[in-house]
Amino acid sequence: MIDTSSAIPTAIESKHLFLRAAAGAVTERPPVWLMRQAGRILPQYRALRSKFPDFKTFVKTPEASTEATIQPVDELGVDAAIIFSDILVVPEAMGLDYEMIEAKGPRFPKVIEYQKDIDALLTGKAAAEHLSYVYEALKMTKTALADRVPLIGFAGAPWTIFAYMVEGGGSKTFSKARRMLYTEPAMSHLLLQKITDTTIAYLQNQVLAGADLLQLFDSWAGELPPAHYRIFAVPYLRQICEALPEVPKTVFAKGAWFALEDLAELPCQVIGLDWNITPEYAKKATEGSKVLQGNLDPCNLYADAATIKKETTAMLQAFGGNHIANLGHGVYPDTPLDGVRVFVDTVKEGMRNEG
Amino acid sequence: MIDTSSAIPTAIESKHLFLRAAAGAVTERPPVWLMRQAGRILPQYRALRSKFPDFKTFVKTPEASTEATIQPVDELGVDAAIIFSDILVVPEAMGLDYEMIEAKGPRFPKVIEYQKDIDALLTGKAAAEHLSYVYEALKMTKTALADRVPLIGFAGAPWTIFAYMVEGGGSKTFSKARRMLYTEPAMSHLLLQKITDTTIAYLQNQVLAGADLLQLFDSWAGELPPAHYRIFAVPYLRQICEALPEVPKTVFAKGAWFALEDLAELPCQVIGLDWNITPEYAKKATEGSKVLQGNLDPCNLYADAATIKKETTAMLQAFGGNHIANLGHGVYPDTPLDGVRVFVDTVKEGMRNEG
Repeated sequence: MIDTSSAIPTAIESKHLFLRAAAGAVTERPPVWLMRQAGRILPQYRALRSKFPDFKTFVKTPEASTEATIQPVDELGVDAAIIFSDILVVPEAMGLDYEMIEAKGPRFPKVIEYQKDIDALLTGKAAAEHLSYVYEALKMTKTALADRVPLIGFAGAPWTIFAYMVEGGGSKTFSKARRMLYTEPAMSHLLLQKITDTTIAYLQNQVLAGADLLQLFDSWAGELPPAHYRIFAVPYLRQICEALPEVPKTVFAKGAWFALEDLAELPCQVIGLDWNITPEYAKKATEGSKVLQGNLDPCNLYADAATIKKETTAMLQAFGGNHIANLGHGVYPDTPLDGVRVFVDTVKEGMRNEG
Repeated sequence: MIDTSSAIPTAIESKHLFLRAAAGAVTERPPVWLMRQAGRILPQYRALRSKFPDFKTFVKTPEASTEATIQPVDELGVDAAIIFSDILVVPEAMGLDYEMIEAKGPRFPKVIEYQKDIDALLTGKAAAEHLSYVYEALKMTKTALADRVPLIGFAGAPWTIFAYMVEGGGSKTFSKARRMLYTEPAMSHLLLQKITDTTIAYLQNQVLAGADLLQLFDSWAGELPPAHYRIFAVPYLRQICEALPEVPKTVFAKGAWFALEDLAELPCQVIGLDWNITPEYAKKATEGSKVLQGNLDPCNLYADAATIKKETTAMLQAFGGNHIANLGHGVYPDTPLDGVRVFVDTVKEGMRNEG
């Protein structure tokens, strides 16, 4: 059992730059990490991964997850670790198994089509119980990190998990999932609520296992029209944020530029931004109410060092304070490690906030 | 040879609702058509298509293209026809052959990687000469339409064609194409210019063959950061618009909400909008300088008739005048024909502008 009595230090008083920045404090420089920093960009990861027959076995082995989580801290000197896992462990825990097809992505042999499919799902704590390997990995990582940097836990946002469960995998349009919102709105809400309940239980357990901050990935936010994002996404993000007052929370809704004003009203501390959104637009839309995270174009890291330095510095200057440096998307698998290093080092050395 | 002496009637004085609306006139109701209206949603198209061994043979047969172009005019009563073709005929005419893989999409066996690959391309008129089957289809369609509705010609926008030529097919990130913009900016401009020169020659021939309006599809606009869109996309769109003063032009840059102000300054008449952009946002960003086209979520047409009617009417009201009704994306292949009909009929009957 997880000890619910363990106290969580207030982020703003943390010794960690990342947590202080996430809590809105003025920091000596912006902290830096990269989405998907744990993974294929590192040769150490590829060596570790090759010892496992498939991705899912890897994800379900806490020792492997721990090692992959710590590798970028050692290798790149980032200011935060993010637990190596996958957003699709949640639908799986609810009873919808997925396959990860190498170089293609996830596939769900069975999808949600009818009310009975939703009725058959596990939900809330009962579903979250099946994810003990994640909690184990968080605890092991926490011990291994020895408080060097904070540990980020995460989950997919309900709409994105819904999209996979209905669509059955990646899609150019997610038209099956979006179709259900029009044809079966009540059923859609029922499924979104079940995903939300499970996600809350899952993230509560992550916090108890040591996660210092939680990030919600709404990868397919940009597929929804603004009115639907307001109806089918934002209320569930709100429920999750409200259920987890103990730690700072980041919402990264890719493509949801149109919803920034709504996201700015969520009880979360940080808003993640994709590379389509200019710092100016984001600052205006959120009116300084949130810490902003992002958003260098990941393709920038293919460039030469001088270009990366120049564009990273321009980004840091455009955001100014209350900023966590990151890319605007997960780092692409074939990104040269040298490019990643220049990015991290530029943030760490090239730009120090005054005072 | 195409007769260059044929006069093109001024759109604003046209007898056609669509052309008058595109030219900015106040019309009795908004005209309506659908992107991808010619194609898989129609049983007549599927019957016709089944007579051909593959997509490319179909596209290169003017009689087939003509029939597919006219089918939705007969069957749905839309206010414009759009020539049945593909944006990838342009790279093919330049010397980069593609395959269309059923249910998967296009693939280029050879891609653009080095300067020598660009040097080897045909460009401008020499490339556009290879597209006589498109001009033939336009002329045949024009005759067969007998001036019932105007005929839309089209091409891919240079950045989107560039993306396919470098990436080699569809992609979740287009990171190879975007990478080249960072690593080889001068070479990228060279390729974009060759595509632009070819597109201009191609579209000039389309006008001479009877196209009444031209639409540029920038399908992957949303993959670029705003700064890159301004550098690598907008100037080439401008060249094309400037080279074709005889007919109204529509620019549809999917995902490029961030560039609406720039697009509003192009010498085009109509801006196409995807379903992420609210009419309010678009009107503000373009300051009434353009006719707006779009932008119902294509998934809306999966809903029941009452829902489609309600949401279509709400869209029409939100846009108000200077609007061409359309979806915010090409109609999805599995859309029920009844849904499409309700959409078209709602625009044609449900909403008439006063005066």
